[in-house]
Amino acid sequence: MKTAIIGLGLIGGSMAIDLRKTGVAGRVAGVDKNAAHAQRALELGLVDDIEELESAVAGADLVITAIPVNAIKTVVLNVLDHISADAVVVDTGSTKSMICKAIENHPRRSQFVAAHPLAGTENSGPNAAHSGLFAQKTNIICERDRSSTHALEVAERIFSTLEMRTIFMNPVEHDKHVAYVSHLSHVSAFLLGQTVLDMEKDEKNIFNLAGSGFASTVRLAKSSPDMWAPIFEQNAEYLSQALLEYIMHLQKFQYHLMKRDVKELHRIMTNANHIRKVLEGMDVKQKPNQLVENKS
Amino acid sequence: MKTAIIGLGLIGGSMAIDLRKTGVAGRVAGVDKNAAHAQRALELGLVDDIEELESAVAGADLVITAIPVNAIKTVVLNVLDHISADAVVVDTGSTKSMICKAIENHPRRSQFVAAHPLAGTENSGPNAAHSGLFAQKTNIICERDRSSTHALEVAERIFSTLEMRTIFMNPVEHDKHVAYVSHLSHVSAFLLGQTVLDMEKDEKNIFNLAGSGFASTVRLAKSSPDMWAPIFEQNAEYLSQALLEYIMHLQKFQYHLMKRDVKELHRIMTNANHIRKVLEGMDVKQKPNQLVENKS
Repeated sequence: MKTAIIGLGLIGGSMAIDLRKTGVAGRVAGVDKNAAHAQRALELGLVDDIEELESAVAGADLVITAIPVNAIKTVVLNVLDHISADAVVVDTGSTKSMICKAIENHPRRSQFVAAHPLAGTENSGPNAAHSGLFAQKTNIICERDRSSTHALEVAERIFSTLEMRTIFMNPVEHDKHVAYVSHLSHVSAFLLGQTVLDMEKDEKNIFNLAGSGFASTVRLAKSSPDMWAPIFEQNAEYLSQALLEYIMHLQKFQYHLMKRDVKELHRIMTNANHIRKVLEGMDVKQKPNQLVENKS
Repeated sequence: MKTAIIGLGLIGGSMAIDLRKTGVAGRVAGVDKNAAHAQRALELGLVDDIEELESAVAGADLVITAIPVNAIKTVVLNVLDHISADAVVVDTGSTKSMICKAIENHPRRSQFVAAHPLAGTENSGPNAAHSGLFAQKTNIICERDRSSTHALEVAERIFSTLEMRTIFMNPVEHDKHVAYVSHLSHVSAFLLGQTVLDMEKDEKNIFNLAGSGFASTVRLAKSSPDMWAPIFEQNAEYLSQALLEYIMHLQKFQYHLMKRDVKELHRIMTNANHIRKVLEGMDVKQKPNQLVENKS
């Protein structure tokens, strides 16, 4: 497939690598409004050439958008205006309500697939792109019934090539769940980092004292504010709910701590230990692209 | 050195492995009040035999205590009552004020070294013990001037064999810093786990949606409540301060989020990004056992 990838960062770049390697993508035209990123993506061989959006998508069979969520609406509407009648557009952004709402009545809605491959690292930009980023991870597709059979087939081919398994959700449900399972982790890490930086004015102390536990818990605090600020803004309602619940749990813990109620602290931690079993399920290798219908 | 190790979990067991492998420890007698752990440690070959505390420490040149912090006082006092006049006792617990205070006027205080090797994983018990746990990590020794030259030399030999570098702090300073850099990370992970478990009653959702970011941030929520509840109790004052600051940062973030003040969210995250540079320093391999004097 002749492919255009808009946004040549971690997600777009990593897709380019594996879709080209497997032959699913033929010639790949790259688009990035950041000229340095575009140049770097070309140097790294992520794409065959760099083009303007309009020309890149004009002849493409497949267009992938992998850009900050505050740019998705404008870019997707622009893409839909310039694609051919049998091209397919797959968005990969981390929020889904806004874009699904924005194009709900668009005449080319059926050519669009609202996806969210749940993969990433704390690094960003074309230098962070690498093969295998998506393998054994979950992809979510929203509003499946609003995409054409052809568009869904193309999307399935992409995500199964990337060794992802796809599940389906509605956009509101998607945004709510990722607020808890993904966005809250980022906020918690950013502010754990901030708290420790504030306290340890002498940063040598952090360097000296931080074990692998702190490094792991705070890892996401290295993530890109350019990418995450718009995600948090778009998902503010659900993220705020999640934050309130998290704060409430922390305050309760602190209350029992001040009362030296060790039995209650022990009980809370024992309950939280259950996350081990849930996460160990994550290590089970599942059949890629196993389509799991979500009932709720 | 004829060695006794009291507490055959992750820390005691991992020390046993590397101190025997390098020949620093000769015959190792193991002590554990949990009979199943003692038996398992013997099966795994972590120790040469299992003994009662009194007989194990009677003939030992070196006694290492690696037990939950609520047991340290009783056990260390018992150990000091049974050791020979030139034996050295090294404690490895995660809080230091309580034990230093408890033995400050003990006639054998100078045979004791108050250490805290900053290493660990979310796993515990003899099965979790492994070689290399301590390599390239930091060890803290408190109240250096209250240990004899011989005791410090033995401790230095142990920690340098484990490829750790040692820094010195007073016990209060130690407890305060680890509240922020270690204990707070654990609380934040336990309650992130709890928040997500509460929200996602259908645990399939966590399994499906959790990426490597969530897994990393929540990893410490798998830690042992038996080990951590007493640590939190002993360090309640400083941990509570740290928690209050963390909660304050989270609440401020939520306030800006509700106001959709993306610029401020961006600024907060950009500040927190600085933790990357601090942590990257952690990857720099340092000369083991480089003695760094802490001025404060």
